[in-house]
Amino acid sequence: MNRPPAAHDGPRLRVDLAALAHNWHAVRRASPGGRIGAVLKNDAYGLGTAAIAPRLWQLGCRDFWVATVDEALAVRACLPADGAAAGLRILVLNGLAGLAAADFAAHGLIPVLAGRHELAALAGHAARHGERMAVALHLDTGLTRLGFGAEDLPYLLPDTGLWADARAQVWVTHLGRFHDPGLPQCLRQRERFVHWTAQLPRAERSIATSSSVFAGPDWHFEHARVGSALFGVPTGASSAPLQPVASLQAPVLRVTEVAAGCEVGYAGSYVAAGPRRIATVAMGYGDGLPFALVNRGHLILAGRPAPIVGGVAMGMVGLDVSGYAPGEIRPGMWAEVYGRQQPLQTLAAAAGVAANVLLALSARLAPHRCLCDAGEGA
Amino acid sequence: MNRPPAAHDGPRLRVDLAALAHNWHAVRRASPGGRIGAVLKNDAYGLGTAAIAPRLWQLGCRDFWVATVDEALAVRACLPADGAAAGLRILVLNGLAGLAAADFAAHGLIPVLAGRHELAALAGHAARHGERMAVALHLDTGLTRLGFGAEDLPYLLPDTGLWADARAQVWVTHLGRFHDPGLPQCLRQRERFVHWTAQLPRAERSIATSSSVFAGPDWHFEHARVGSALFGVPTGASSAPLQPVASLQAPVLRVTEVAAGCEVGYAGSYVAAGPRRIATVAMGYGDGLPFALVNRGHLILAGRPAPIVGGVAMGMVGLDVSGYAPGEIRPGMWAEVYGRQQPLQTLAAAAGVAANVLLALSARLAPHRCLCDAGEGA
Repeated sequence: MNRPPAAHDGPRLRVDLAALAHNWHAVRRASPGGRIGAVLKNDAYGLGTAAIAPRLWQLGCRDFWVATVDEALAVRACLPADGAAAGLRILVLNGLAGLAAADFAAHGLIPVLAGRHELAALAGHAARHGERMAVALHLDTGLTRLGFGAEDLPYLLPDTGLWADARAQVWVTHLGRFHDPGLPQCLRQRERFVHWTAQLPRAERSIATSSSVFAGPDWHFEHARVGSALFGVPTGASSAPLQPVASLQAPVLRVTEVAAGCEVGYAGSYVAAGPRRIATVAMGYGDGLPFALVNRGHLILAGRPAPIVGGVAMGMVGLDVSGYAPGEIRPGMWAEVYGRQQPLQTLAAAAGVAANVLLALSARLAPHRCLCDAGEGA
Repeated sequence: MNRPPAAHDGPRLRVDLAALAHNWHAVRRASPGGRIGAVLKNDAYGLGTAAIAPRLWQLGCRDFWVATVDEALAVRACLPADGAAAGLRILVLNGLAGLAAADFAAHGLIPVLAGRHELAALAGHAARHGERMAVALHLDTGLTRLGFGAEDLPYLLPDTGLWADARAQVWVTHLGRFHDPGLPQCLRQRERFVHWTAQLPRAERSIATSSSVFAGPDWHFEHARVGSALFGVPTGASSAPLQPVASLQAPVLRVTEVAAGCEVGYAGSYVAAGPRRIATVAMGYGDGLPFALVNRGHLILAGRPAPIVGGVAMGMVGLDVSGYAPGEIRPGMWAEVYGRQQPLQTLAAAAGVAANVLLALSARLAPHRCLCDAGEGA
């Protein structure tokens, strides 16, 4: 079936590539000297690597950070075949993860080594392959997640055998309290990072992400890794003028009038206190709408907020549209879940989740998708 | 890159088709007389329509319920091309949703009409296409979601013009408190359903779903629509002997020892009270692990529960493995997120979400998948 554009049986995602470009330039201006790498984990935070990566490439991005090898291959598949000659690097944040180092090298991927246990896989690489392998390395300065800690530094010093087989491209660390790089914990992590890398072979240093990239040159070093900010998702107090790249709409399937005492949705979580008009919208937890939105938050209908009533089912949610004129809300209309009328973070806050939780799940699962490159006025 | 089986950079889902068969037979025994339709919304609750639908077909299932037209086409694509001759019906729960009735008819799909507003699209169908269109119809007996309510019944009576263009295949209703069909609200919905359908053209009646199908013959009528139960997800107090069809594992990326006072994960949500051993596992909210699991719940490592410490990041979570012997937990080991050692519903309860929330998101997003058909002993 060629589905006509009139289909309104599930959510549709609009990805605004002009907003992506706007955000890229905002980050670029914040850190004019260093490299900007794009973080495209989870299919580019759900927005679609195939759309996002080529546009970033066009804007001059050459460094792409992903979590897994599958994600890395997806990035590579949508960039120019001769990308490496133009400086393309794809860095895999989960490290070797049991794969052979040669598999990374053969495909031009750079593992971000996760810890000391991954060093053995590099031994003898140069002898076997005639060259040293390009690697990045996590340093665990306080997040306790991946990386080499203080006790592991001896394994990384310039005179160790490691560097006969590997060449360091980037030293990477993650802030535990990334929302606010001014906190003492962040400053301590920064201090460790500087102190440690001063003893290690020279390579780019990368600590800044979407929040800290806007926190001034002390954070930039040689490489900032940016995901959320490119997609217009604020991750801290920064007032950087970002634009939302994703907007998500969901269609109204039915509108009905109910009497006082009527229950809406499962488990009797909403009982109408008086006569109400209820719109049923085709968006549920299976589409990434947070399950916690029971009688909380709203979607935008006809330019105004319509409160969620009852709970969130697998594919549907109810809205109270009693405040609209009779007949104003009709099946086939589209409710904005988030976008330019309702910021992603507003709905996420109502659900008690981070904005990226809502984005990554709902964008990734949207059955209908469209791209535009029209910018502000679109 | 042909990824070797040793890759452990993200979650892997195992779908047990023998358990699916076991559950199908359990449902079949519970309702020996009526039809059993399989609900395969959201890519078969995330398990994969392409694996699930053909196995159900083999077991004798002929009725498949989905939410959207895309899902319907996905079901059709993996079943025998001459399925219709063997009784195949695919029913689309979101209704016409703006598409032309003829599009459904041309592809042998049956829309479940969502309300009165969809009737106009059927007018003249028989004259244009030489036959009446097969439809199912939602009756809204108390859930206030989709369907025809009491005030809409006059449009459906046997003598209305509708039936010159349409033929009713199934009358459908949904219980608001489906977890416990014994509740008075459910009994009232059942009573309305019986009373309403007695006045309407004869067709199969379908009210039972995964919980009520086990609640005795009063609920069965001619057609039960079953999703959760087929996948082994309990949705009520029923003690039906279901087996989990999905199991999900996630790999350990790193293990490290930390000192007292050390923070684990973002935002300082966990601070080690003493020396601890922490395993970092590659599974996060972007993989469908609930964001609410901050210092709550556990995953299974080496047969024992390992508590989640800190919060859930996009692609990683921390476990406290201090209780294991030194060296017992190593990178490359797999933690069971849910499966035969930890029921899906245990982790879901720790997160405050329905079991299907955890299943539908995490199964659907798992980057590595494997099928097995080996049954209990596997």
